Amino acid sequence: MNDLAIHLTEGKGKHLYEQIYEYIADEIREGKLLAGEKLPSTRSLADYLQVARSTVELAYDQLQSEGYIESVPYKGYYICRVEELYRISASGDRRRDTDGKRSWRPDGEKDGREGGKASQMGGKSGRRIDIDFSPNAIDMNLFPFGTWRKITREILSGDRKELFALGEPRGDLELRRTVCRYLHSSRGVNASPEQVIVGAGNDYLLLLLQYILGRDITVAFENPSYRRAFRIFSSFAARTVPVPSDENGICVEGLLSSGANVAYVMPSRQFPTGTVMPIGRRTELLRWASSAADRYLVEDDYDSEFRYRGKPIPSLQSSDTAGRVIYIGTFSKSVAPAIRISFMVLPERLLTAYEKSCGFFSSTVSRIDQTILNEFILSGAFERHLNRMRKAYREKHDLLLECLQPLLDRFRLSGEYAGLHVLLTSRAPAREEELLEKAAACGVRIYGLKEAALAPLETSCATVLLGYGGLNMEKIREGAGRLNAAL
Amino acid sequence: MNDLAIHLTEGKGKHLYEQIYEYIADEIREGKLLAGEKLPSTRSLADYLQVARSTVELAYDQLQSEGYIESVPYKGYYICRVEELYRISASGDRRRDTDGKRSWRPDGEKDGREGGKASQMGGKSGRRIDIDFSPNAIDMNLFPFGTWRKITREILSGDRKELFALGEPRGDLELRRTVCRYLHSSRGVNASPEQVIVGAGNDYLLLLLQYILGRDITVAFENPSYRRAFRIFSSFAARTVPVPSDENGICVEGLLSSGANVAYVMPSRQFPTGTVMPIGRRTELLRWASSAADRYLVEDDYDSEFRYRGKPIPSLQSSDTAGRVIYIGTFSKSVAPAIRISFMVLPERLLTAYEKSCGFFSSTVSRIDQTILNEFILSGAFERHLNRMRKAYREKHDLLLECLQPLLDRFRLSGEYAGLHVLLTSRAPAREEELLEKAAACGVRIYGLKEAALAPLETSCATVLLGYGGLNMEKIREGAGRLNAAL
Repeated sequence: MNDLAIHLTEGKGKHLYEQIYEYIADEIREGKLLAGEKLPSTRSLADYLQVARSTVELAYDQLQSEGYIESVPYKGYYICRVEELYRISASGDRRRDTDGKRSWRPDGEKDGREGGKASQMGGKSGRRIDIDFSPNAIDMNLFPFGTWRKITREILSGDRKELFALGEPRGDLELRRTVCRYLHSSRGVNASPEQVIVGAGNDYLLLLLQYILGRDITVAFENPSYRRAFRIFSSFAARTVPVPSDENGICVEGLLSSGANVAYVMPSRQFPTGTVMPIGRRTELLRWASSAADRYLVEDDYDSEFRYRGKPIPSLQSSDTAGRVIYIGTFSKSVAPAIRISFMVLPERLLTAYEKSCGFFSSTVSRIDQTILNEFILSGAFERHLNRMRKAYREKHDLLLECLQPLLDRFRLSGEYAGLHVLLTSRAPAREEELLEKAAACGVRIYGLKEAALAPLETSCATVLLGYGGLNMEKIREGAGRLNAAL
Repeated sequence: MNDLAIHLTEGKGKHLYEQIYEYIADEIREGKLLAGEKLPSTRSLADYLQVARSTVELAYDQLQSEGYIESVPYKGYYICRVEELYRISASGDRRRDTDGKRSWRPDGEKDGREGGKASQMGGKSGRRIDIDFSPNAIDMNLFPFGTWRKITREILSGDRKELFALGEPRGDLELRRTVCRYLHSSRGVNASPEQVIVGAGNDYLLLLLQYILGRDITVAFENPSYRRAFRIFSSFAARTVPVPSDENGICVEGLLSSGANVAYVMPSRQFPTGTVMPIGRRTELLRWASSAADRYLVEDDYDSEFRYRGKPIPSLQSSDTAGRVIYIGTFSKSVAPAIRISFMVLPERLLTAYEKSCGFFSSTVSRIDQTILNEFILSGAFERHLNRMRKAYREKHDLLLECLQPLLDRFRLSGEYAGLHVLLTSRAPAREEELLEKAAACGVRIYGLKEAALAPLETSCATVLLGYGGLNMEKIREGAGRLNAAL
């Protein structure tokens, strides 16, 4: 015990659980705590530190979700084996993470993550679908229309002619500066404005990659993954390959044998599985990328905004010392899908390729919209909006989990405490279609994992997605109730 | 080089390009770098500092947009006179610049039609350019800010949540309907809304063509032509070929011998020559297109709104019975460049290819902007705006022609009565650079035909472009007067 010489300082600054988390994380990174070592139980450490047990649990949860430690049932917490670690962003940056400033999700229709329009009729049964657990629907009731109007009016009232002129191809410098500050404080992303390309949606930014990376690339995807991205890369990349992934995400052995030189990943929360990529796997990936001249990781940080327990997971880019991570984020979901503003952070080494091959493409985002968004962020309205959304989504999330309890003897729950959907996996062999059909028969739409499959999923069990972002509390209670009866 | 003793510090704090910018700006203010001195090329400074060339370019752009340095075509970057800096800082743009609202050089500056901002200083002479006959500048004083604000306010005031949702990939049906009606009445274009693809700018729509037409195409261009389109097609098309053209436009014999299967044309008013393609040539082109399965004509109808004599020239698409014309138009000239809304009308036969290859790409235009534009058109404000602009531009056009009379013994005038620029071609052999230099020496910027050349132009005479859209009457009179004396 005494080898954990944690000195906690009460009051302002870091929360106690953060101090515990950071102390232990540092000890592990510095090799003072070794792989396989057992951590004190939450109770004994809480007694030892004279803090609430929940505080220690919070710290352990965080360490676990980031892959520093693992919990062995009936045994306790153990240090994970983590090869020489890349430095995560400074804790100073991370502290501000708790300000709550995050949420991305690419836009689009037909691909799982986009939820999309559910057909209004429920399969064979023909019963009308009146509750749609779309994994992507967001709650537009929370959108601050008033503030948006006010900012828009103020910006237009200036007769600021320059706003009606064509802007810079990369996006307005002010917005790119703001995005840099925002990404640095909220995601630990290290970038200068010149590395930021603002574009009208992720699809467009992914299209630009064919000019930056060239078309003779092999892009690896986890299976299942975000099919829209898979389709877009398939539209130009020489090869796109699904690569086996385990509970920690994409497997590096699979990457190597696939011959891929680009890997598309969602380390903060994989879609659709909700997996958080642990630090160990991140390190392996970064080493894989830096060990050949033309290897890159595309980090789609689509929904890191919403975590309902512990601190946000730092971005992969923040640990990238070799300049191999292409970071992509969007405001489509954190602000509104209609706001067609996404951004891509290119590593320095790719800036010349960008300039040469597509640096002359006109910006796809109106300067007026860029200015409104910039003001929305600078004014603090964005942060307030995110906090409101996070609170509302957490309440929906908690209610759904509570209402799904009766199902948990037949289904395993996963992907909780973050994002806008959870997953249910049947404990016994089952057919996905059957589950969707049963749900539809009682007027409820749920989504199958297969929708996101890039290759057959080897499992006899069925997994379904339940999104709660777009449903109000009654609908969630009612829908969960029907599912309890139906599944 | 060694006299630029810039010490860059990586990492936190100022970004590299800012450090370069500030170092050079200080040197100039402190008189260590003197007016007229030539700066190292971006490449050599980048090599010297071991930074990406784009980093130096950013710094130079910034210095130029703030009037510290100027770019002299075909020569390089030169230091401006310091006393000029105060002159510049008095101007509105400059004032905004110091607010941090820096007016960065618009992209495509070198692509003629995009016009863009002229550097503040005139070549060797070092005389300040105070009259810029940019062929692309438009008169934003005519923009109905009030109406635009009012429409925006009305649309946002409805808390119309659906506007903040993601729209259809092709664009909102209402806008596509409106575009169809507008195109039919004003350009004779025959199209149903399903043929219309709304996108964020022509560049994006041209990028989509690589998915619709495939990349194994040979695209023919007139010479000279719109270089930006040439560059974009060159970025994906298997081959792009300049084809000889005569006073009626692109020659069909040249097309046939070039082996092209796609021809990019501007029949209503070719840029930069201003040629209007006569019906005879149009018929030949349409016959050429329909006489092979995979042949298409891309009609860029970029500024057909502005004709000051006679009826508007009907679009090529309106006489296309074989479904071989891909019609592209934009609102960035008729409304404002910042309105990133262009549209493409696909022939029926290409709709399946569109659906299959890129029909799933998310729309690149915000629904809010689409709704505002739609209302702007439906309310009649667009037509009133066009009429106001037509009237104003006609007056400028007429005045310029009148003031250029004295030059017409030495120069042949062409491209008049339409668009936003005219051309002067020397009757005697002359060098284009010389004319630009003479104009610059008296503080006037005019533009050379060579900027739009895709291949050497076989002529011993020099042709220059004079745009009048962005100049007021005095400037036009004053500028023409100086040119009469100088050329």
